[in-house]
Amino acid sequence: MARIVKKFGGTSVGDVDRIRNVASRVKKAVDEGHEVVVVVSAMSGTTNQLVDFCRSAAPMHDAREYDTVVAAGEQITIGLLSICLQEMEVPARSFLGWQVPIRTNDVHSAARIEKIETEKLEECLKGGRVAVVAGFQGIADDGRITTLGRGGSDTSAVALAAALKADQCDIYTDVDGVYTTDPRIVPKARKLDKITYEEMLEMASLGAKVLQTRSVAMAMTHGVRTQVLSSFEDLPGTLVVGEDEIVEQEVVSGIAYSRGEAKITVVGLEDRPGQVSHLFAPLADQNINVDMIVQSASEDGTSTDVTFTVPEDDLRKAVKVLSDRKDELKYRDLVYTGDVVKVSVVGVGMRSHAGVASKMFDTLAEKGINIQVISTSEIKVSVIIDAEYTELAVRALHTAYGLDAPTDA
Amino acid sequence: MARIVKKFGGTSVGDVDRIRNVASRVKKAVDEGHEVVVVVSAMSGTTNQLVDFCRSAAPMHDAREYDTVVAAGEQITIGLLSICLQEMEVPARSFLGWQVPIRTNDVHSAARIEKIETEKLEECLKGGRVAVVAGFQGIADDGRITTLGRGGSDTSAVALAAALKADQCDIYTDVDGVYTTDPRIVPKARKLDKITYEEMLEMASLGAKVLQTRSVAMAMTHGVRTQVLSSFEDLPGTLVVGEDEIVEQEVVSGIAYSRGEAKITVVGLEDRPGQVSHLFAPLADQNINVDMIVQSASEDGTSTDVTFTVPEDDLRKAVKVLSDRKDELKYRDLVYTGDVVKVSVVGVGMRSHAGVASKMFDTLAEKGINIQVISTSEIKVSVIIDAEYTELAVRALHTAYGLDAPTDA
Repeated sequence: MARIVKKFGGTSVGDVDRIRNVASRVKKAVDEGHEVVVVVSAMSGTTNQLVDFCRSAAPMHDAREYDTVVAAGEQITIGLLSICLQEMEVPARSFLGWQVPIRTNDVHSAARIEKIETEKLEECLKGGRVAVVAGFQGIADDGRITTLGRGGSDTSAVALAAALKADQCDIYTDVDGVYTTDPRIVPKARKLDKITYEEMLEMASLGAKVLQTRSVAMAMTHGVRTQVLSSFEDLPGTLVVGEDEIVEQEVVSGIAYSRGEAKITVVGLEDRPGQVSHLFAPLADQNINVDMIVQSASEDGTSTDVTFTVPEDDLRKAVKVLSDRKDELKYRDLVYTGDVVKVSVVGVGMRSHAGVASKMFDTLAEKGINIQVISTSEIKVSVIIDAEYTELAVRALHTAYGLDAPTDA
Repeated sequence: MARIVKKFGGTSVGDVDRIRNVASRVKKAVDEGHEVVVVVSAMSGTTNQLVDFCRSAAPMHDAREYDTVVAAGEQITIGLLSICLQEMEVPARSFLGWQVPIRTNDVHSAARIEKIETEKLEECLKGGRVAVVAGFQGIADDGRITTLGRGGSDTSAVALAAALKADQCDIYTDVDGVYTTDPRIVPKARKLDKITYEEMLEMASLGAKVLQTRSVAMAMTHGVRTQVLSSFEDLPGTLVVGEDEIVEQEVVSGIAYSRGEAKITVVGLEDRPGQVSHLFAPLADQNINVDMIVQSASEDGTSTDVTFTVPEDDLRKAVKVLSDRKDELKYRDLVYTGDVVKVSVVGVGMRSHAGVASKMFDTLAEKGINIQVISTSEIKVSVIIDAEYTELAVRALHTAYGLDAPTDA
């Protein structure tokens, strides 16, 4: 018997039939003798509708009231799932964030979980019942409803698994696991049986979009074994675990790419101490997240060019911030494009293997792909290239690192 | 400065524009210096949709989970109304049933309010803010959400007005007050400025449908001055008050009618003691509400005929209950019809005036309308007649009791 937290997202609970399907999945685990806590999101579309209501009520709205409105979505799903479970003779009861309670700070719409009191949930599980918990929501010290921000249900699930010392946290999604790369681009992509938290963090934040970065970080901190699997097929997914659980480490686990990038080059910036921080401070003030940064001296030696990437959605804002400060920052020109993509090679094994980066550069060079920016960390190498080379680059790298699935002979 | 509870139903908050309209109404009262508590229902259609979800999840469902699901409707409205008020620079905050808290018993889906703790609301009002409270919902002792049953928001409003010792409770609806009768039948119907609780109870339970019977009873018990008025026009409505507030009492205040009635006659029932209770006990067991009862001896003196009315929705069930027990009850025949209407003359003034009932019978006789069953109380006389005479009867009675509005000369 194991204790398992299972999380189902909005698509998995999109209508009553799908909620019934979720109930069957839960029943199966209960029949196998497991203790089960289910975390659910709002029915797909519901949250968007509620957010639209708030926006049309007032463009700038009180985050506390916004949270009250949008938290209604999960409230509907937990009741319906409990009803479906009971109809299948699986004893179940629903818990809203405040009923658990899941205590958070008071940063409404982006609250952080501070403490989960587990007494009531333990009592529910000990009574042989399934606990159906609303994801995405909690309660602040003043008794008002908070929400954790978009995708917060993954975080709720992992936090509950940690608090309840669950053996595993299953995150059901519309994909059946984590792949070596995007199967839509590389048909030979393989589903990974296991991946480390660190790799998953790089894959997720680089656009693999399977698990919320925040929930992976939490899983890593608390050592929660997390499985990503399909809510529509009954197959094992990908386990996200600590490095110790992975016996033989692949050098490279996957190739990630992210299209939502934009590149800005500040040309002819006066080369004196502190100038770069003057450049980035106003961007940070505007909450623009600067990712990769490369600085190069210009030919005359008195000025420098700085290239960096920002989320494509923030490009206009970033350009405006810098243009407004042209006189103050003293640069010659601003060159920017949204037509780039970030491609990354990820793997904890590269720590102990030399040559991963150079293989990447060689592979791209062979295909005639120009690398515009490079950034590396312990377990990944990322490059910015022209967007039109995305598929070519990802496919070439996937083959170069031996990730292609064996073809049937 | 007065303290006023204002309640807006589902049609009044049917979309964001209408919620904004409600906010303007509230702002007006705040600008006049009043302390305002607003009670709102779910946006029209929302509750029905949530109820449908529950039904399609399981025909018989846990009332606790049902309550969790449907209570989400009001949660959405209170947040949106608070946002709209804030946008108009009216300080406001929302309160869910459990946040007030509004404590109820644990009869889920039909809970009764037991106690309203007013500290937080008082604090909100003293801070110069509008309290926006979710109608229809409360919290049981075990911390689970309860709902008060359909139309429970009226009850929430009156209960809050009583607990907060409010000067008045305004119930905004899609009609602009209580009329002497249905204006769709009698164009000369007049809007009443005032009506007593007792009369309103008779009017409501007889099908006037303006205010929930339960909320009127509560207003009467706690002496809450309650006004019924339009949420779309800015006009005074009808005040529902104690008899002492009405200086000169009309003998008859209104003519009510109710179409949802059915008549059953048990013919040739054996005439012996206890037989009538044997007849009604199984109906009560099935929760069938028997209303008017008339018993008459049959010609041979050894048997009796009993005629009574039930809600038309329960006619089939009632007939089945009695048919199943034909041998046991020993009657000759069962005659029934749903094609009847109950017409009532209501007025507290009739207590001190003789001749109200006979004027009714005379008026109906003059029009050739046959009275099938009669029932009287201190402040009303009701008759059952063929449904096809409804309009004729109501119009004739409205004129006979001098209720017609003066026509423009």
